[in-house]
Amino acid sequence: MDKTIEWINEGEFGYSLLIDQTLLPAEYKRVKICGAQEMFDAIKTMIVRGAPAIGIAGAHGVCLGAIELAEEENFIEKLLQIADYINSSRPTAVNLSWAIKKQKEIILLNKEKSNREIIRELIKNAIKLENEDIEINKKIGEYGSKLVPKGAGILTHCNAGSLATVGYGTALGVIRSAYKNDPSIKVFADETRPRQQGARLTAFELLADNIETTLITDGMCSYFMEKGMINFVVTGADRIASNGDSANKIGTLTVAIAAKYFNIPFYIVAPKSTVDMNLKTGKEIVIELRDKKEVTHVNGKPVCPLGVNVINPSFDVTPNSLITGIITECGVFKPDEIYKAFS
Amino acid sequence: MDKTIEWINEGEFGYSLLIDQTLLPAEYKRVKICGAQEMFDAIKTMIVRGAPAIGIAGAHGVCLGAIELAEEENFIEKLLQIADYINSSRPTAVNLSWAIKKQKEIILLNKEKSNREIIRELIKNAIKLENEDIEINKKIGEYGSKLVPKGAGILTHCNAGSLATVGYGTALGVIRSAYKNDPSIKVFADETRPRQQGARLTAFELLADNIETTLITDGMCSYFMEKGMINFVVTGADRIASNGDSANKIGTLTVAIAAKYFNIPFYIVAPKSTVDMNLKTGKEIVIELRDKKEVTHVNGKPVCPLGVNVINPSFDVTPNSLITGIITECGVFKPDEIYKAFS
Repeated sequence: MDKTIEWINEGEFGYSLLIDQTLLPAEYKRVKICGAQEMFDAIKTMIVRGAPAIGIAGAHGVCLGAIELAEEENFIEKLLQIADYINSSRPTAVNLSWAIKKQKEIILLNKEKSNREIIRELIKNAIKLENEDIEINKKIGEYGSKLVPKGAGILTHCNAGSLATVGYGTALGVIRSAYKNDPSIKVFADETRPRQQGARLTAFELLADNIETTLITDGMCSYFMEKGMINFVVTGADRIASNGDSANKIGTLTVAIAAKYFNIPFYIVAPKSTVDMNLKTGKEIVIELRDKKEVTHVNGKPVCPLGVNVINPSFDVTPNSLITGIITECGVFKPDEIYKAFS
Repeated sequence: MDKTIEWINEGEFGYSLLIDQTLLPAEYKRVKICGAQEMFDAIKTMIVRGAPAIGIAGAHGVCLGAIELAEEENFIEKLLQIADYINSSRPTAVNLSWAIKKQKEIILLNKEKSNREIIRELIKNAIKLENEDIEINKKIGEYGSKLVPKGAGILTHCNAGSLATVGYGTALGVIRSAYKNDPSIKVFADETRPRQQGARLTAFELLADNIETTLITDGMCSYFMEKGMINFVVTGADRIASNGDSANKIGTLTVAIAAKYFNIPFYIVAPKSTVDMNLKTGKEIVIELRDKKEVTHVNGKPVCPLGVNVINPSFDVTPNSLITGIITECGVFKPDEIYKAFS
């Protein structure tokens, strides 16, 4: 599969190329993103989604903003404003602000250089982050796969796959690595309402890799846990507080509670860039509320009477007490080891 | 609102009139059911659904079968076969076999009479069951409403409303009665994938009654429980074993586990006809597996790649340990009191 997000060198600077995830699995199309506002919109409308992927999208967005400003005076001031603007496109995943912070460091480090030189440095750094992402995921997969029991039935929620990263995936990276060692594993994919990233993206990725996958609705997890068909859970994360509390796609907390009830290991899988050491606990994580239409409409048509009230939180926070471990490129940590490991 | 299911006297015997629940909320239409096979199909395809409602549908189905056989020899033998056939339309809800058993008793009690006289007795009994259902639900509502805290945030899963019964509802009957006493209650309705009875039917019913209702996706319950916005849970049941284990719509077990985790009362609401004293525990309850298309398609279009495997259990069993109480027309019982109360 192509990279989910890729910087294409063309002409003097180039552009960002994204797999349009709103069209999958019906249509596979890559879209060219040539400006900062376009990238803001692509993140906001979830053409690109998944915490690590929107980190890279943020880094690319700063490059695109810089290219647009190439001839302007007060280049640095204006560029830093654009970086903050892109950072405001989605609030929960820390990887976005992490990557934008990395780009801001490049801007300030090179502030004496010409606009064009700064742009070249930003692109160089964005490509570096892009390439590192895949390496990180493969390391994560290596660590995580050792925890997967022989012949496991693995549940995952949402999509923490190749499509949520530049490639390979975090939670699905663990599954891919486990599958290499043991092709008898079976995956259960929660459809993940409202936006169905599990049904649309995770099922799509795992089918492409020939990994046996059963699609279930979000309420079904307990049924299969009770039957002993699910005995391992992996999900991604959008922000991990220093005490190990982890925000991830709405519905993750419900899965974690069910896993605890059935004594099934529940692992969070994420690069260390997802850890936000500024936060003591998950209570400080800002949860994005999204449009009610994501809940009321499926395939362009309503599934309910339109007058009904809707609240649509896009994430929830799983407390550290429900998390068996956090799998990163630096190893596997208990939630209470996160603070020490990353400070 | 009209009765969900109603026997209409017309000509010599009459027919059954159903609200077509597959069309709601987009279209409100009542359909005339004139034969046993038609009723079998209406139950199977969920034109009529909800445990108490399909009980009455079964009773009507036997009447319709009898009318079709009115001129036949071996009337009783053939009619009992038809009764068994209708009973096989859906396996999990015990109310179907309960009502069909009631009709079989009428058949055997009147076996010396003429075919036409037996048909009249069956119709009389079906109308009696139909009328009793609403009275039962109002009694249930009365008992249940006393348990609802002032200003409660009440979660319900699937539809155990007027549309799941002849009228008024079981779980929604409790909500309706509670609302009469305290209009400040707020309801959260799980959309209830795959068939979205919560989004389509519960939201429709509660909006019609002006009860404040927020539609959420099935994975969101824990989010709102954690925030203290949900502090009471009521659901219906399709079959209750003598130890109080209760089968209900898939996803109920997940909700019950979340409620336990947050120490929120979780009540099953059902008429005593839902209790199956033949079963020691819920492990003996047969769980219906339905078509994978219910999971893979919404509004007529796929939500996933079509090659993916799907398992679609229509119900799950909540163990007695997760149930605070079972609200019936005979009062409220702890799960371990069910055996004594109904034997």
